[in-house]
Amino acid sequence: MEVGFIQFAPKFGNSEYNTQKVLHLLGTDRADIIVLPELFTTGYLFKNREELERLSENVNYSVTISKFKELSKEKNTIFIGGFPEKSGDNIYNSQFLVDGDKILIYRKNHLFYEEKKLFEKGNSNLPIYNNGIVKIGLMICFDWIFPEMMRSLALAGADIICHSANLVMPYCQDAMITRAIENRIYIITANRVGKDERGGKSYQFTGRSQIVAPGGDIILSTGKDNETFLKIDIDPKKSRDKNINNSNNLFKDRRTDIYKL
Amino acid sequence: MEVGFIQFAPKFGNSEYNTQKVLHLLGTDRADIIVLPELFTTGYLFKNREELERLSENVNYSVTISKFKELSKEKNTIFIGGFPEKSGDNIYNSQFLVDGDKILIYRKNHLFYEEKKLFEKGNSNLPIYNNGIVKIGLMICFDWIFPEMMRSLALAGADIICHSANLVMPYCQDAMITRAIENRIYIITANRVGKDERGGKSYQFTGRSQIVAPGGDIILSTGKDNETFLKIDIDPKKSRDKNINNSNNLFKDRRTDIYKL
Repeated sequence: MEVGFIQFAPKFGNSEYNTQKVLHLLGTDRADIIVLPELFTTGYLFKNREELERLSENVNYSVTISKFKELSKEKNTIFIGGFPEKSGDNIYNSQFLVDGDKILIYRKNHLFYEEKKLFEKGNSNLPIYNNGIVKIGLMICFDWIFPEMMRSLALAGADIICHSANLVMPYCQDAMITRAIENRIYIITANRVGKDERGGKSYQFTGRSQIVAPGGDIILSTGKDNETFLKIDIDPKKSRDKNINNSNNLFKDRRTDIYKL
Repeated sequence: MEVGFIQFAPKFGNSEYNTQKVLHLLGTDRADIIVLPELFTTGYLFKNREELERLSENVNYSVTISKFKELSKEKNTIFIGGFPEKSGDNIYNSQFLVDGDKILIYRKNHLFYEEKKLFEKGNSNLPIYNNGIVKIGLMICFDWIFPEMMRSLALAGADIICHSANLVMPYCQDAMITRAIENRIYIITANRVGKDERGGKSYQFTGRSQIVAPGGDIILSTGKDNETFLKIDIDPKKSRDKNINNSNNLFKDRRTDIYKL
């Protein structure tokens, strides 16, 4: 199975440009699963709730999601990426997964910093998509710092974590090695690059998108400011073996009788 | 508060030599908390249960523990280290904490590989020692790979994790950076060095004992095969602030309504 990520610098507030940019980076290529960054349709640094409201999309009427459904059918690809989702009066920092006409929406559970002023926090159950071949778990950016999030997805059977990110801190990429070791799971982190400078604030994003294999090897990674589509062939079934030797199984050895979580 | 670790190569089956070695490495120096490796009294590679039984000690009659209680009073030091503990017909891979005459025993919850053939698994509650100034959480070696273990200790209020290890894999030292970031806690890993070659088996231990600060900085570390006592001054109260900015608190932001653990 071919899996990949697209790393790029979205142009703020221009979802049409950003979608075209993704298409351009992809070209005639494809993969079975492609992960895009968090909020790749709009950029990250909204000045206020009004601006965010104007740029957010309702899943049922989203031009972006329609376009990616079409692309999904054309390329036989599962696309995953972040966008600001409007639902009634609420706005979520969300992630879509589209597989042809099928769709799963995940609303970010752990909001970072000033996102708390802009977005409602997620109310999703554990986001897992199962197409009968592979189980995909969804995560957005800051979710990484809470070990419970990926652990819950892994315990629920996820083979691959598709992690859309807009990382500004330097810790996550290395931490994902630990997450892949402790859960024996594939992790695709699609991070953005470039800078958002708006309303007197400035965020520099850290790139270094990567794919980590169960056991902690970084099997694919890229730079801190380049725009690219990269992919690699993996066997997602490797995630289903939680044994690290003939005596230790990372899930069966858990001492749920002792933990107080 | 001064905290430190002793890294050395125990001589197999010779607890008197190993205790003297610790005393020699310490010399006239001291610290408030000193962590010693897992099974530092005996070495690691027991040929069989009979040999382990012969070398294990009952807490109430342990020459080693008496010696460290005495040393604790003399130097006003809390000592933490690993030993094979006999209790009735059971033998545990245990860790003592001695503070003068006070003692806390932790029995390893997550046994690694062939330890399962030799030891009973731990039946401890969460091992936390509180002397009114600092709360010390205890962990032994392979416990590191289960994020639930340190998370449980951190949620229960531990300021410092004292981690006695006999590491053979190369992953733990880096993973402890992630653990310190996700829990904002001090972590002292005292690992052994050298090799155990017995009964046709051979284990090389990886050293690189270290102290990681809340937030993930390695503030003290050493080499992969040297024997040493090292210490550093820390403020354990820094572990009590779980805020990473003015909007995010690592404990309050946990979504226990979503996790399925």
